[in-house]
Amino acid sequence: MKAHEKAQPGKQGAQGADVADVAEAARRAALLALDWGTTSLRAYLLDASGEVLATRISTAGVMNLPVPAEEGGFDAAFDEACGVWLEHAPTLPVIAAGMVGSAQGWVQAPYVETPASMDALVAGIVRVQTAQGASLCVVPGVLEPGALPNVMRGEETQVFGALRGALHGAPRGTRHGTQSALIGLPGTHAKWVVVEGGRIARFYTFMTGEIYAALTAHTILGRTMKRPAEPDTHAFLRGVTVAREHGCEGLLATAFSARTLGLTGQLAADEQPDYLSGVVIGHELAGLEVALARRDVTLAQCAPQLIGSDSLCERYRLALEQFGCMRAHIVHHATERGLWHIAMQAGLVGPR
Amino acid sequence: MKAHEKAQPGKQGAQGADVADVAEAARRAALLALDWGTTSLRAYLLDASGEVLATRISTAGVMNLPVPAEEGGFDAAFDEACGVWLEHAPTLPVIAAGMVGSAQGWVQAPYVETPASMDALVAGIVRVQTAQGASLCVVPGVLEPGALPNVMRGEETQVFGALRGALHGAPRGTRHGTQSALIGLPGTHAKWVVVEGGRIARFYTFMTGEIYAALTAHTILGRTMKRPAEPDTHAFLRGVTVAREHGCEGLLATAFSARTLGLTGQLAADEQPDYLSGVVIGHELAGLEVALARRDVTLAQCAPQLIGSDSLCERYRLALEQFGCMRAHIVHHATERGLWHIAMQAGLVGPR
Repeated sequence: MKAHEKAQPGKQGAQGADVADVAEAARRAALLALDWGTTSLRAYLLDASGEVLATRISTAGVMNLPVPAEEGGFDAAFDEACGVWLEHAPTLPVIAAGMVGSAQGWVQAPYVETPASMDALVAGIVRVQTAQGASLCVVPGVLEPGALPNVMRGEETQVFGALRGALHGAPRGTRHGTQSALIGLPGTHAKWVVVEGGRIARFYTFMTGEIYAALTAHTILGRTMKRPAEPDTHAFLRGVTVAREHGCEGLLATAFSARTLGLTGQLAADEQPDYLSGVVIGHELAGLEVALARRDVTLAQCAPQLIGSDSLCERYRLALEQFGCMRAHIVHHATERGLWHIAMQAGLVGPR
Repeated sequence: MKAHEKAQPGKQGAQGADVADVAEAARRAALLALDWGTTSLRAYLLDASGEVLATRISTAGVMNLPVPAEEGGFDAAFDEACGVWLEHAPTLPVIAAGMVGSAQGWVQAPYVETPASMDALVAGIVRVQTAQGASLCVVPGVLEPGALPNVMRGEETQVFGALRGALHGAPRGTRHGTQSALIGLPGTHAKWVVVEGGRIARFYTFMTGEIYAALTAHTILGRTMKRPAEPDTHAFLRGVTVAREHGCEGLLATAFSARTLGLTGQLAADEQPDYLSGVVIGHELAGLEVALARRDVTLAQCAPQLIGSDSLCERYRLALEQFGCMRAHIVHHATERGLWHIAMQAGLVGPR
């Protein structure tokens, strides 16, 4: 595991930096908040107003622990990422969201069923005692039951972070009972979450990122591809359009066009990666459009909030425009905000 | 390369068998016909009536030559597979179909465009001289031009093999000008071919086999799967139904149900491979249904011919029934029949 500290604006990084700064940040902190997923662990040190004092990022995801789980891998990863802070603030409350609460995680936090409110998430928090003596509060994931069930772990926290918006001036216990939203979380397993009455009403999962990676690395489509020097927006949007126009014929059919357009000289090798990305993301949005239509909603009517890396969210924003959805916007810091608000609601930290 | 000879009924295999039999078969032969694809080379020795006298199967596909192409890999593979026959019948006409005629093949046989008749295929044959002195006739593939072009190499030969049906009594030059058919060729890149007026009018490609393999080997879906002792038809049909009912939401969404149904105890580990197979094949057929609907055709109206391995074709037959298509049937020996009829039409062999 490699942990490195990201300096916050106006703060000093601690890796090889002033130990006094680490101690000072830890003493000023009101919450230690962890985004602990499959492949990474991000630790945020937050002050009493919810401002991020310091961040440490490690590769010690649930599937990538420094030592096996049964040999104390979670404690080891936690200590390596956060020990330097807890040394100076041993009673700091600690909250975590993500795969750390799954069956393969540190402790299983059973899913809360949709419609899922923040109160329900708080009520579902499960605690695990760390070797250092801290009590780690693990936020549960959300399950939408049904013939084709859906699950999330970590995204529920980001959703509530996005809903609460700006950190400041959101007093403990504020209810957003009338809040409705469509929130997109692109990535390996992209989620689209419908919020109604301030609760997660339903959501959809698309294996977009993972299937794109499998297509490029493990099928014939990757063989003729050349990575372009710059992302090729034109090729990307061309792929989106193909998926939008041929949505119901399906990805199995349209993906092959990356090859046949190449074979017939209509798509250069270095256009193929972005073209295929557009095809796959386009199919996600075409599928979402169909799912939304069941309740007479169209993407064009929505103003989705996007949570994820800026470059990926920007791709989605452009793709959404092809579906007539012109008001998508990117939300930052949803994870740490969500963790902060859930911790507030759980009484782990008091209001400023 | 490993070549092994398959004994025909009433014939003796030649691998370590009687050399006199090989010589006799070669002397009786009227055509050497090759199905030369990406990963394998199948060689058929046919008599003057089109009956298969002997078969040799090798792994020396175009992408798997014993030595690199530029060092004579095609000649080496051809010699290893067929040399034992040509030794006894050096003037035997030789015909080949498949990727051997691609840009990566022995000689490039440019695509014939749809609508493609057997005459057009014959006119597009390209010859390459082998080191042994034989003249290898390579059948061209077929291209359907358009905004999303489609290509095939090898399947065109199988299609005409299926159309000509039984070998016997099909005199040279027979025209099937009024013949219409829907022909399915399941596999790595499944094809569905619409025949009108005896010609390949249009066709669709679905990356079903390759994407299924990538999903099981290279995504999270494979991690919880256990191969069942027996194919699980119930799980397979459940997957088909999910894809049929959620076709337009797309594979990116429905594939994830293999995981969530597992997580929620509704799909056992050893049901997951066949369930996902049903989902993927179901999406192929749902996509085909949409493509056919553009010309007011439904699968339920069709009596498709299926070409491929018996077990895979049987899966497709069952899946097609879920789409109301009750008259699908499996066609055998389409490859060797197609090669034989094209060779006949090309004048390489005379009628009986």
